Amino acid sequence: MKKVAIGIDIGGTNTAIGVVDSEGNVLYERKPQMATPQKMENTHMTQALSDSIMSKYISSLTSEIKAAIEMVKQINPEIEVMGIGIGAPNANYYSGTIEHAANLPFVGVINFASMIERNFPEFKFVKLTNDANAAALGEMIYGGAKGMKNFAMMTIGTGLGSGLIVNGDLVYGADGFAGECGHVTVVPDGRVCGCGGRGHLEAYCSATGIKRTVYELLAKYNDSESPLAKIPLNDMTSRIVFDAAEKGDHVAKEVFQITGDILGRALADTVHYLSPEAIFLFGGAAAAGDYIFKPTKESMEHYLMPVFRNKVKILPSQLKESSAAILGASALIWKEMEKSRS
Amino acid sequence: MKKVAIGIDIGGTNTAIGVVDSEGNVLYERKPQMATPQKMENTHMTQALSDSIMSKYISSLTSEIKAAIEMVKQINPEIEVMGIGIGAPNANYYSGTIEHAANLPFVGVINFASMIERNFPEFKFVKLTNDANAAALGEMIYGGAKGMKNFAMMTIGTGLGSGLIVNGDLVYGADGFAGECGHVTVVPDGRVCGCGGRGHLEAYCSATGIKRTVYELLAKYNDSESPLAKIPLNDMTSRIVFDAAEKGDHVAKEVFQITGDILGRALADTVHYLSPEAIFLFGGAAAAGDYIFKPTKESMEHYLMPVFRNKVKILPSQLKESSAAILGASALIWKEMEKSRS
Repeated sequence: MKKVAIGIDIGGTNTAIGVVDSEGNVLYERKPQMATPQKMENTHMTQALSDSIMSKYISSLTSEIKAAIEMVKQINPEIEVMGIGIGAPNANYYSGTIEHAANLPFVGVINFASMIERNFPEFKFVKLTNDANAAALGEMIYGGAKGMKNFAMMTIGTGLGSGLIVNGDLVYGADGFAGECGHVTVVPDGRVCGCGGRGHLEAYCSATGIKRTVYELLAKYNDSESPLAKIPLNDMTSRIVFDAAEKGDHVAKEVFQITGDILGRALADTVHYLSPEAIFLFGGAAAAGDYIFKPTKESMEHYLMPVFRNKVKILPSQLKESSAAILGASALIWKEMEKSRS
Repeated sequence: MKKVAIGIDIGGTNTAIGVVDSEGNVLYERKPQMATPQKMENTHMTQALSDSIMSKYISSLTSEIKAAIEMVKQINPEIEVMGIGIGAPNANYYSGTIEHAANLPFVGVINFASMIERNFPEFKFVKLTNDANAAALGEMIYGGAKGMKNFAMMTIGTGLGSGLIVNGDLVYGADGFAGECGHVTVVPDGRVCGCGGRGHLEAYCSATGIKRTVYELLAKYNDSESPLAKIPLNDMTSRIVFDAAEKGDHVAKEVFQITGDILGRALADTVHYLSPEAIFLFGGAAAAGDYIFKPTKESMEHYLMPVFRNKVKILPSQLKESSAAILGASALIWKEMEKSRS
């Protein structure tokens, strides 16, 4: 029998579904991805409405999982499914719940894992965690963190998520929600963060943060020669800033320098807390390569206590971005199997 | 047989030695404490000189440990010593070494645990960690953190040390030195820290930090009525500030308010990283009671993401200050026994 795990990633727009073997080969992936139910504008979400949307979603997801298993079994009938790993926003590993997810149309605390479990009683594990934790597990099981017992994963997209591995296991904390490094304070009384706080790492070191730094610098220099001066806030992307930097634009270069300075200082604090072997960067902003890695590394080393200097690697994630979400979610299952053996 | 552990705490001035049972009863404690070898002014510490001082120190320590065991055996001949736990500055749990300790007269990396081990081959465990990590273990084994799997210990004395417990075990990190929360940046480009960095937590939230805040406020207000205005920097203590606050002095009260504001913001970040069940405060500054706990708690709640609010307790350590160092060091041994059973 060939052991496989189902990986599901619930994003704000789409839900990815795939089947992965223990080496990280994606044997099947639903293309296009399934739609995640959307919040309805101008509609008050009652519990009843939320329950009804959820019930339909669970039912579709169940059909899709069954279809995925069928597809894989057609190629190799010797498939044994070990479980379903799910990455979702505001997911609680301990309780298997999705709690007060602001970007999903579900009200309150949803017993998501148990609803899926009910439809697949034959599987040993149905497990849930947030996407950044899943990414950290993916890196440990299939990626660049193989064999590492202590590392951190920073997923830098619209926001900044993190998954922390200590003594070979994820840090979930007392309540299941640990690892919110995007919301540590890096600039007291600084920029307003999406969560309502001030001066959080995510408000500086994320696609959104990079965008904000662009306009801060355009305001500072009033530089009409910069290619960035032609682009309104709502159209700006990290990619555009990267392209401008490649063409030598000093505003774009300074944006990455500032982003790396702040990220490096925050990562120094990650080291002061956890002394990881490596810190992995994942996502769009990390794709800017040396523009982001170089100032981040320099800044981290500058802010580290001497005992930690020149020890901690800052590495790009080794997970392919296109299937990283599925890989991460499926890794939950291999990790559960490892735990159940020990 | 009654199982006991030896606890040794190597401080900058004195070395404490005690024998502790698994309930945290101190069966013997050397009084007065033994002297720790001192740095010699105007003397270049060569490796040979360092080795000679160390060799004498190990020899005295060995005699003292043997004497301690004898004393306890006289009272109860059925004593079985399980091991020797040692708390020391710059101690590495993994390697059992003391590395580049700035306040001790030892050069380079000292194989401290193995030198002690050589003299006590009959003991199963000789283990070393830094004092804040030892305090965290002491709290978990004997104190207010019994049964907790995720908590943090902040030891607030001249500096600020920390011990972090995740999934029921200490966070040592990849190199054995994790848990240096005193050196996270809380004020970018702020006060110079003892380690050479800038704006570190320890430069604000420690006995030294409290002292510095006193003089910052005296400079701000030029308040000759404050009882603190009579006292030079070199004579100022947290106790004097506490007494002034008790008498209603507004400078002293504001000092604690500022200290708590910054500590609370830093602890909010501890929660964002680790989501502990509780954070314990230990040491002189924590003795200021509500003057420090109240603003710290208020500030932490203010800076927490909504998902973490009203969940995390800030508690005073339940270890008696006078024997806490011995208790913490001895707790290393009960923790090792627990690990070796699992």
